[in-house]
Amino acid sequence: MDAIATPEPHHVVIIGGGFSGLYAAKTLGRAKNIKVTLVDKRNFHLFQPLLYQVATGTLSPADISSPLRGILSDYKNITVLMDEAVDLDPQAQVLKLREQEIPYDTLVVATGVSHHYFGNDQWRDTAPGLKTIEDALEMRRRIFVAFEAAEKETDPEKRKAWLTFVIVGGGPTGVELAGAIAELAYRTLKEDFRNIDTSEATILLLEGMDRVLPPYDPDLSAKAAESLSRLGVTVRTKTLVTQIEPSDSGDVVTMKSGTPDNPLIETMTARTILWAAGVKASGMGKVLADRAGASCDRVGRVMVEPDFSIAGYPNIFVIGDLAHYAHQGDRPIPGVAPAAVQAGEYVAKTLQRRIQGQSVEPFIYKDPGSLAIIGQNAAVVDLGFVKFSGPPAWFAWVFAHIYYLIEFDNKLIVMLQWGWNYFTRKRGARLITGEGGVATAEAAGTYRTRVKEPVEV
Amino acid sequence: MDAIATPEPHHVVIIGGGFSGLYAAKTLGRAKNIKVTLVDKRNFHLFQPLLYQVATGTLSPADISSPLRGILSDYKNITVLMDEAVDLDPQAQVLKLREQEIPYDTLVVATGVSHHYFGNDQWRDTAPGLKTIEDALEMRRRIFVAFEAAEKETDPEKRKAWLTFVIVGGGPTGVELAGAIAELAYRTLKEDFRNIDTSEATILLLEGMDRVLPPYDPDLSAKAAESLSRLGVTVRTKTLVTQIEPSDSGDVVTMKSGTPDNPLIETMTARTILWAAGVKASGMGKVLADRAGASCDRVGRVMVEPDFSIAGYPNIFVIGDLAHYAHQGDRPIPGVAPAAVQAGEYVAKTLQRRIQGQSVEPFIYKDPGSLAIIGQNAAVVDLGFVKFSGPPAWFAWVFAHIYYLIEFDNKLIVMLQWGWNYFTRKRGARLITGEGGVATAEAAGTYRTRVKEPVEV
Repeated sequence: MDAIATPEPHHVVIIGGGFSGLYAAKTLGRAKNIKVTLVDKRNFHLFQPLLYQVATGTLSPADISSPLRGILSDYKNITVLMDEAVDLDPQAQVLKLREQEIPYDTLVVATGVSHHYFGNDQWRDTAPGLKTIEDALEMRRRIFVAFEAAEKETDPEKRKAWLTFVIVGGGPTGVELAGAIAELAYRTLKEDFRNIDTSEATILLLEGMDRVLPPYDPDLSAKAAESLSRLGVTVRTKTLVTQIEPSDSGDVVTMKSGTPDNPLIETMTARTILWAAGVKASGMGKVLADRAGASCDRVGRVMVEPDFSIAGYPNIFVIGDLAHYAHQGDRPIPGVAPAAVQAGEYVAKTLQRRIQGQSVEPFIYKDPGSLAIIGQNAAVVDLGFVKFSGPPAWFAWVFAHIYYLIEFDNKLIVMLQWGWNYFTRKRGARLITGEGGVATAEAAGTYRTRVKEPVEV
Repeated sequence: MDAIATPEPHHVVIIGGGFSGLYAAKTLGRAKNIKVTLVDKRNFHLFQPLLYQVATGTLSPADISSPLRGILSDYKNITVLMDEAVDLDPQAQVLKLREQEIPYDTLVVATGVSHHYFGNDQWRDTAPGLKTIEDALEMRRRIFVAFEAAEKETDPEKRKAWLTFVIVGGGPTGVELAGAIAELAYRTLKEDFRNIDTSEATILLLEGMDRVLPPYDPDLSAKAAESLSRLGVTVRTKTLVTQIEPSDSGDVVTMKSGTPDNPLIETMTARTILWAAGVKASGMGKVLADRAGASCDRVGRVMVEPDFSIAGYPNIFVIGDLAHYAHQGDRPIPGVAPAAVQAGEYVAKTLQRRIQGQSVEPFIYKDPGSLAIIGQNAAVVDLGFVKFSGPPAWFAWVFAHIYYLIEFDNKLIVMLQWGWNYFTRKRGARLITGEGGVATAEAAGTYRTRVKEPVEV
């Protein structure tokens, strides 16, 4: 027992082990008189930018995931808690988790976003999105089951539906998914089937705006569209999905394009529809609104002050994709990994300076540029001062991702896996696993019954 | 249209893409006037000897799996069919799959074995076995959930149950699992938790015979037991599990040892019980018995003729773990990968010689020796003419496995992953995924509800 009174350390509770939460925690690792509790409902940090490579059979889940306990084990002032935040009492400074309540001095909310179906939540089962490992494995399962089912299907119309892939949303995720599926169908799998010609597959990328990769420079959007076309992807811009209805042959996607005066309505029957179109705030956004009066934007993201705190609560910060930060430039800071990392580090440093009674520096977002990969050797890069595409962009993309994978034990392995795939064009991870991983007559018919979201037991 | 009548190729249907089926198919690849259909309910070949490394978080499923279509795509006379065999008409020479019927000239059955609970099938959910990728991911989930739950548990008795791992069966799988879990608890995870000391975990390996690795030389069994003890595993031989009953604190395992006159009954409460104790024939064994009058042994394996055909049906072969081959030595050929590979190659060559009217050579099993890994740097090797253990055995084990992984694109990756793990003692693949992958209050309580077998939809 220590007879001398030592000051109680300042307790920072961080919810969410994504980029922003993890980097906030790491920055506070070994900080004097600060103890940190990192709460996450999963036991690993996920490198989300590469999730589409799991969905298309290039990488394994463990290649892009790293156990939070392993990453943080050397920081003895950090405790990792596998639990889920459900409520908050900002007056009492208590966070309510499913299994316990924990008091905090400072709360950092970094719970991110999930899919948004724009009021069509009934599409969730038909058109899964891509946010979790389970999502990616479900997409992988559907994509490879589709080719297997097509191989066995004798009805030409149904076979065509199995070989039709519709990707909704032309942002980076949609572009990368479409490119990867095109490489699968037109290259990797070409010699693998006996009854079907996988190069007859239709890959349709739908985007509501007038170009793919809308946040990028128009030149790069054009280059990306060109690369996608060269790969065999049909790109449709200014096209909205208005309906998805089941039919005997597959799901009928109704698309609307043209002008309000002269709309063009088309349909396409597909067995695989992938959603890459929108995000909405995770549940903690609403909790902050209800309990702490935080204001939220249209999709539920929390409007934050210049230091990422919420109005009226200087000890509650919101960072990462859940934050709407509108204090720099014309648009909010984008929901990308570098922005999340910078916010996490900034908040951690700000907190330390405050505790030490030092003045707080303003946050300045350093945009490292935009990157999207379209396929082997094809990528677009916008570094602000320079824009380029083609193989140099592909290599830039690879190195940028390896740089950010620096937290990962398996960086080297991922790099080698890429190198291997690059030269062989093979995809080792194209396994059909999980429920429905066993081929049967009904597998095709019930391919939708699997639970997409991790079950909240 | 070809006006000249060409002879219809001989149609070989192989059921099962494990070691024996795959090597039979490959040996028939490019064979003249033979066409092959390989039927498997999964779309990949699984390197089962390394499945325990997936179960304990070292390797990813894709590291030890390889898509069958990819392996065989260059053999244009081979068609891969993702389907499941359910019945057979040996007179009409027609195999019934779930989705279609296919005629054959020669049938090769290589559907393997599954777990055997010796009449206690109710233990299946409590004590999962290790045969499929899904089994391995379920074991991985339970092992890592147990540490997470122990970290949160405040009741000392319940916490102890979470930190108790019982492995039933002291064959190679049981020994390898116990060794890997010991390394996890006593090394890898040691620094990762704040409330528990993972080195207080109890790892109990139960074996009914008088020593672990019963088929090996007694010297090596002793060396293996010694290595396990040094790692911290409690080895109990001549001990049978007689009951597994749920309780508030966990599952109570009742063990019987001693002599029939003087039995010793003990209990141990554990949250994680893993089954590595027995095998029984897959469903095709019974189909062959019912339809073709095949005789089966005690666990349902099919008794085969010296050429692996079944009595009365020279055009039906049974190979791999499903076959009981008792024509060489005192004991049946063991259910190990090298025996399966040799049988597959032998049957394929025999068939070709028969079709060409050549005489058939007798099968001679070449025993490459026995190997088991106990932990880092600890393994036992029995090559017949020489037996050794310790680090040289570990390296022999690594190289033997790499040799057999030769079919795999990812051999190099696996080797590097091992090298990395070897030097860092980290385990990157310790993800808790799938249903129950999200931490909640009830996750612990309902950890048993997940479907262990791939659902036969």
